[in-house]
Amino acid sequence: MFSLDRDSPVPLADQIEARLRALIDSAQLPPGAKLMSIRRLAGQLGVSPNTVVTAYDRLVAAGLIDSRGTAGFFVAETATTQADAAELLEAGEEQEPVWLAQQANDQRAGVLLASSGALPAAWLEDAIPATAVQRALAKSNAGLASRCPPQGLPELRGAIAMLMRGQGIAVDAGRLLTTWGGTHAIDLICKTLLQPGDSVLVEDPGYFLMFGRLRQAGLRLVPIKRRPDGIDLNQLEAACVEHRPRMLFIQSVLHNPTGWSSSAANLHRVLMLAHQHGFLIAEDDVQGHFHPGSPTRLAQLSGLDGVIYYSSFCKAMSPALRMGYIAAEPRLLKALLREKIYSILTTGALNEFVLLEALSSGRWRKHLDRLQQRLAAARLASTRQLRQAGLLLEHPAEGGLFLWGALPRGVDVDLLVKDAYRNAILLARGATFSADGTSDPHLRFNVAFSQQPRLAGYLQQRLQAVAGGNATLRRLGTTPAKD
Amino acid sequence: MFSLDRDSPVPLADQIEARLRALIDSAQLPPGAKLMSIRRLAGQLGVSPNTVVTAYDRLVAAGLIDSRGTAGFFVAETATTQADAAELLEAGEEQEPVWLAQQANDQRAGVLLASSGALPAAWLEDAIPATAVQRALAKSNAGLASRCPPQGLPELRGAIAMLMRGQGIAVDAGRLLTTWGGTHAIDLICKTLLQPGDSVLVEDPGYFLMFGRLRQAGLRLVPIKRRPDGIDLNQLEAACVEHRPRMLFIQSVLHNPTGWSSSAANLHRVLMLAHQHGFLIAEDDVQGHFHPGSPTRLAQLSGLDGVIYYSSFCKAMSPALRMGYIAAEPRLLKALLREKIYSILTTGALNEFVLLEALSSGRWRKHLDRLQQRLAAARLASTRQLRQAGLLLEHPAEGGLFLWGALPRGVDVDLLVKDAYRNAILLARGATFSADGTSDPHLRFNVAFSQQPRLAGYLQQRLQAVAGGNATLRRLGTTPAKD
Repeated sequence: MFSLDRDSPVPLADQIEARLRALIDSAQLPPGAKLMSIRRLAGQLGVSPNTVVTAYDRLVAAGLIDSRGTAGFFVAETATTQADAAELLEAGEEQEPVWLAQQANDQRAGVLLASSGALPAAWLEDAIPATAVQRALAKSNAGLASRCPPQGLPELRGAIAMLMRGQGIAVDAGRLLTTWGGTHAIDLICKTLLQPGDSVLVEDPGYFLMFGRLRQAGLRLVPIKRRPDGIDLNQLEAACVEHRPRMLFIQSVLHNPTGWSSSAANLHRVLMLAHQHGFLIAEDDVQGHFHPGSPTRLAQLSGLDGVIYYSSFCKAMSPALRMGYIAAEPRLLKALLREKIYSILTTGALNEFVLLEALSSGRWRKHLDRLQQRLAAARLASTRQLRQAGLLLEHPAEGGLFLWGALPRGVDVDLLVKDAYRNAILLARGATFSADGTSDPHLRFNVAFSQQPRLAGYLQQRLQAVAGGNATLRRLGTTPAKD
Repeated sequence: MFSLDRDSPVPLADQIEARLRALIDSAQLPPGAKLMSIRRLAGQLGVSPNTVVTAYDRLVAAGLIDSRGTAGFFVAETATTQADAAELLEAGEEQEPVWLAQQANDQRAGVLLASSGALPAAWLEDAIPATAVQRALAKSNAGLASRCPPQGLPELRGAIAMLMRGQGIAVDAGRLLTTWGGTHAIDLICKTLLQPGDSVLVEDPGYFLMFGRLRQAGLRLVPIKRRPDGIDLNQLEAACVEHRPRMLFIQSVLHNPTGWSSSAANLHRVLMLAHQHGFLIAEDDVQGHFHPGSPTRLAQLSGLDGVIYYSSFCKAMSPALRMGYIAAEPRLLKALLREKIYSILTTGALNEFVLLEALSSGRWRKHLDRLQQRLAAARLASTRQLRQAGLLLEHPAEGGLFLWGALPRGVDVDLLVKDAYRNAILLARGATFSADGTSDPHLRFNVAFSQQPRLAGYLQQRLQAVAGGNATLRRLGTTPAKD
């Protein structure tokens, strides 16, 4: 059931109580479940029965368990821990972006995360040396009592600036601000530089949580088609005239969800239009570390003039650190820093010192090289299998996590996604990545997960069934799970 | 100057380059500074001169240093790292809340942080066992590759719920949400449950960053006087009628900046008014862990009905972890969780596993006991010394960090605060904590720092000068630093 820590100063009865509370809170011991008898639990844990009695008594007093005389102890029905808000979000919201973000982040789910936005944990295990955390704490001024300046540790900003200069972006530590990942960067930009009612250009398809954030901030989203070589310039120019946008959000490198990277010529034209029409650009580079080559970025071409650049180490190094960064000209950076203070005061010294240690250890570059090799192999395997299963992959990405594959005509993507989830496969449909939710025959595939034969097997079987006409996807949509 | 890591796989030239870049970025090597000669640096580091040449060449190529022939190498004037945004905020904003938050968080400053909102780092050193971080990583599912569910780790929420039940608050893990500290909790509440134009009741004085956050969110602040036994009930009732408020922000226990705790009777009346007038309550308990007794909280009286409660471990355990938590009824918690996902996606698995380990280790209660003893002694010493210096301390707090002391009549508090800062003493004046910035003769004192004789000595000297009439504070305001 659980074990006790005999070296701990916490009394054994307290430990038993705590473990049982945790099991009840997490519903591993659900309401109505019978607890082990006092004698049996005492024997199993090697403690005196009185110790277990103490713990059970406290849980009875707290209303978490009931004593039913000789029948024993049971988890109270009223102890029903209020269904986790997490679970509340699940019901009926299968395509809801928030729900999707949550699933992809949740390792309890046990489903094949074919559309996940993240790498499998095992691929990141060598990203940070095992000793890095202790070394980081030793180098910090006061260990876990350290405080972090709101702009970020100067040495860490220096190390990030050096990485960015290696990508061709002229930047120094003074133009950088650390954040809690890329999502926080979007939130800061949104709250600092935009006003409700402002028109904002976004690539379509794009990152669903960003769309949600912008909408909640009262902004008017103007979707511009994303093409394999970059944003659609004709649509962009027309939208500038029609909507007088305040900002463009763009992901030049390894765009999510398509995996495409913008050409240098396309980016040059984007900057010209920004200059001509007076809008700011927020350049999202959270996928950029995955690119195996030397792609061009707006931050590089512009020297950060009118471009707010952000990226993170969540995807390629460590989701547990939640570290991201923004680079911008001082005028804008000052406003962003102010908003960072108001929204979260500062980032964590623990996280920043560990990241600094990881970047200084020299492991980062090797880790990235290895990741890119692994991703290339996975992309090859996934592409082959998905094509065999019947998916259309017209412009496979040159790197990164994603493939953007279209279902053949006649397949109801919504029903397929629901059916897949009943078969423990998480797929994200095109509409989720659409700025206005319009239907789209694409699915986003994460190459690290999509090479698993179970996915191709499932898709092939379903698509053949549709093609064969003897089982419509409408029927699939209502049948129970297959296996 | 710096040392090299010979066990690192990073080439020595790269290490030298990185260290120099960091020194230049952080302006420890300011523009125009002369670098050590190649020969001398090589000798000092024990490397070949060619290695230093490689590093210097790269820095020249990057435009960070200039070679001036036989005169040597100098930090380029154009390498002027843009003044840190941090520094930009300093100029002319001495009383600016954001600037104050930044100073108090910034350990480079080297000033006596007499008004700081935080404990000295040394007081927190024993809060988390040295082995906790490695143990936490070992217990996590995937070390630094672990992901955190957006609501927070279920086991951690279970441990926090148990702590809260120990404070008399009926709560379980399902009603909890982890945050990046108390400031993040305020931000989430603000964005989730309030609309621009809403009237919000706040205690006056109160937490300046909260005032700033609420104002930036377009809310109308209605200040209600805070008294030693709680919020002023007459003013509160009148404001309910006049302003039809949507929410009240209140800090029942060890209120910042006064240190006062509300009486149970006062809190009961507050809840009655909330019920009668239909407003929500956000109860800030970020100082609560410091209370030596069993104070009453709104969350306890209300069973969280209509009360959103938040607290954090930043102040009493570890500022480096940045962990806080919100408790609320499921209907509200769901909305807060959604906003957490939109604003930062999730909190850090590293931070949550370390906090869980710290709470499970049994050290927490002992650490708090020790802290409270230390704070009690510091409060005694600070109270005595400040009174001797001439400060009026009418209602010293029964615990926690703060003393709320008034200057004698006739002293210009603004000038004194400026003069103190020139003398390397950070004081925060009453107006900073006022919801509408009105002048106030009080200063907030942090007892952990205010027992330092330098503070009392400085204050006594200045107040005597004013009383003696031979040096007005107006003159003090324009004289250069004294010592």
